[in-house]
Amino acid sequence: MGHGGGGLLSAELMTHLFAPAYGNETLAGLADSAVLSLGGARLAFSTDSYVVRPLFFPGGSIGDLAVNGTVNDLAMSGARAAYLSCAFILEEGTDLTVVGRVAQAIGTAAVAAGVTVATGDTKVVETGHGDGIYLNTAGIGLVPAGVDIRPQRATPGDVVIVSGPVGAHGVAVLSMREGLEFGADVVSDTAPLGGLVAAMLAVTPDLHVLRDPTRGGLAASLNEIATASGTGIEIGERSVPVPEPVAAACAFLGLDPFYVANEGRLVAFVPPDHADAVLAAMRDHPQGAGAAVIGTCVPEHPGLVVARTPLGTTRLLDLPLTEQLPRIC
Amino acid sequence: MGHGGGGLLSAELMTHLFAPAYGNETLAGLADSAVLSLGGARLAFSTDSYVVRPLFFPGGSIGDLAVNGTVNDLAMSGARAAYLSCAFILEEGTDLTVVGRVAQAIGTAAVAAGVTVATGDTKVVETGHGDGIYLNTAGIGLVPAGVDIRPQRATPGDVVIVSGPVGAHGVAVLSMREGLEFGADVVSDTAPLGGLVAAMLAVTPDLHVLRDPTRGGLAASLNEIATASGTGIEIGERSVPVPEPVAAACAFLGLDPFYVANEGRLVAFVPPDHADAVLAAMRDHPQGAGAAVIGTCVPEHPGLVVARTPLGTTRLLDLPLTEQLPRIC
Repeated sequence: MGHGGGGLLSAELMTHLFAPAYGNETLAGLADSAVLSLGGARLAFSTDSYVVRPLFFPGGSIGDLAVNGTVNDLAMSGARAAYLSCAFILEEGTDLTVVGRVAQAIGTAAVAAGVTVATGDTKVVETGHGDGIYLNTAGIGLVPAGVDIRPQRATPGDVVIVSGPVGAHGVAVLSMREGLEFGADVVSDTAPLGGLVAAMLAVTPDLHVLRDPTRGGLAASLNEIATASGTGIEIGERSVPVPEPVAAACAFLGLDPFYVANEGRLVAFVPPDHADAVLAAMRDHPQGAGAAVIGTCVPEHPGLVVARTPLGTTRLLDLPLTEQLPRIC
Repeated sequence: MGHGGGGLLSAELMTHLFAPAYGNETLAGLADSAVLSLGGARLAFSTDSYVVRPLFFPGGSIGDLAVNGTVNDLAMSGARAAYLSCAFILEEGTDLTVVGRVAQAIGTAAVAAGVTVATGDTKVVETGHGDGIYLNTAGIGLVPAGVDIRPQRATPGDVVIVSGPVGAHGVAVLSMREGLEFGADVVSDTAPLGGLVAAMLAVTPDLHVLRDPTRGGLAASLNEIATASGTGIEIGERSVPVPEPVAAACAFLGLDPFYVANEGRLVAFVPPDHADAVLAAMRDHPQGAGAAVIGTCVPEHPGLVVARTPLGTTRLLDLPLTEQLPRIC
């Protein structure tokens, strides 16, 4: 299971198996989406499969994730999603009314994200070879001129901003899956982030890095950026907003909220001169109302992420070996 | 299973469930790929998931299908594939050497097709919720200026050409799956068709329809075109090339080769003035060496496909309710 968790095992699979097999540099960039040139247009292109269990959870469904997840991967290159593909793998015997509800969720989420589902596919596998519905979406969008957002661009001095409280998606899915009562008031944060990113780019095209901390949570995203850029990252442990019910659920379950998946949050690395204005623009946007500065890039400990505790000590936030919660998206 | 078979049940799912849920006209075009405008570029965009069983079969693997299938869907709009996404859904416990062999097959097929795998994803599901490896690819490519290839453009007088013998892929997979000896000399026809289509477009940009007869075979593709265009189609039953071992296997199994899946063939609808030159160009190309004229579009029986038998009688070739062979691609 670990190879699908977005942690170290996933990264090894990419670095040692897929990238050499495909033999190209585009893939090796390891961003949420690839940025390509085609016919004079500068495009972002991304894909994700969705195997979340259960299909419906507080605040959303696999259909919402499939739209928002890929829309957000494109947004992390600065692109506004234009078109999505959507492919179903159905397990034989899945109720068609459930398929219909998921399709409706996809349609509604696409309208909310301002994206068109342009092409699709359906395959069916035998009972016992699937789990109701698996989805895949791929998306394309235009990258605005002058925008160059990628993990390699993080640099000492950059201000690290998160767009809102973390951990809600993972806790919402887990509480639904396990029938835990204490999670009843936590709903997934699944949301499209293209509008928020556009508002940030209106302040300055010179955002260095954007990342949506999904599998592996905030800690995995920060580690990927530290590794790709070679910069050190220091965050204030208490600066990261964690909703009280999420913190309580994580304490009960022995989870660290910094490692729990989010589906409607982003972390931004912004040059210090623009940080205040970008933060203000984020807070003016519905998807960024809870935005907060959580840390900075530092010249010390290059490639490593360190959290400063309330006691003034520091601890290493390392890349998780795997995801704490399998099939979270 | 029928809803994934590429037949009538698949079409109903699209028409009555997905298209209304997504609420857009692009999807309703029902072509192999969508043709879109983005940033001044005219793009083809397509996706397919691949659930073929077994993963390796005579002549290819799920990796070959995942590359060639999507490359070919783009080619059916006249586009040369430029970039692919590739997403794995792995069943827990799948041997990583098998994953590596599939990744290598993807890399090799991508080189052969002249396409770059630009972005990817990996998810893992528990044992008993997958079947080794499921793949999804999406692809984008440029549609040349002046090219407008879609099923609605078939018109009485068009010459119907198939690029080579039909039925090999389905028989190769089935013989492997069932351990049938008589199919031992049949290998899948899986191949990229972008080069062949480019050679045809060099003769004339005015190709009316291209289709790769995968699930549901030649009969399903012809029916989709007859329905979309409202033209009648008449083919000569003996004009369709069927390799002898394929015909023998089909006779033994009670299959009709016109309904068996192909993964490296196309059917073209060409205005009569250009038909001879297009056929000659096809025969000059490695992927079209066995090309043959199989029929024409006729003003009679609009929307229906009729096969003329050697006795001079006709029979209706209707849309299959489902695929004869599940999980063929």
